[in-house]
Amino acid sequence: MATKEAVMTTREVANRLKQLFDEMKWDQALEELFSDDAESIEPPSSEGLQSVKGLEAIKRKGQQFNEMVEEVHGGYVSDLVVGGNHIACAMGMDVTMKGQGRVKIDEIAVYEVRDGKIVKEQFFY
Amino acid sequence: MATKEAVMTTREVANRLKQLFDEMKWDQALEELFSDDAESIEPPSSEGLQSVKGLEAIKRKGQQFNEMVEEVHGGYVSDLVVGGNHIACAMGMDVTMKGQGRVKIDEIAVYEVRDGKIVKEQFFY
Repeated sequence: MATKEAVMTTREVANRLKQLFDEMKWDQALEELFSDDAESIEPPSSEGLQSVKGLEAIKRKGQQFNEMVEEVHGGYVSDLVVGGNHIACAMGMDVTMKGQGRVKIDEIAVYEVRDGKIVKEQFFY
Repeated sequence: MATKEAVMTTREVANRLKQLFDEMKWDQALEELFSDDAESIEPPSSEGLQSVKGLEAIKRKGQQFNEMVEEVHGGYVSDLVVGGNHIACAMGMDVTMKGQGRVKIDEIAVYEVRDGKIVKEQFFY
């Protein structure tokens, strides 16, 4: 007999997202918390990564970024703040990019939640 | 002799913004921290407030909102998080709107800082 999963609140999604981010389980965050048709929006000024739609395309974008990285020296995710059905946090990385040297990346991420799943992530940098 | 004002860092802008928000000095926050040509972006789904450009238009939007409000019962601004040249926070209000009854509004706000001034505020709800 099929059981209906309880729908997570935005606060519950935020708490789980923070937990997975702190454990650097990025792929598991996508699998567990993102909708299959989620969108990922980069700023218009982005020269590297592109905005994409769909969980598989978001995963490929993550792989694409990982392939550009030579070494990760550190990273952080701030506390998450929740307002209505949106979540925001600051995050950053200290990485050496292949052929580009060492850079610090700092940004704000905003997540939109519908029916207990993240349907949009949007980055500001 | 003219003196050159020191340009505030994004963290300094965030700290001052939080202070003014906590004191509910919204107009002073606009005057002190916003660029003359700042943009204010509402979600595409917004039925009431519109996106506008320019400090005077942002002030008028604030007045327009105030005129729609019958009574403010409460409000909050979360801690502000800073990532690069962006700031994010959650904020909300418990208000009775004229002719619409009492509503709770919760949202995420993202602020973009350039040269020590806020050049864009963007709301997510």
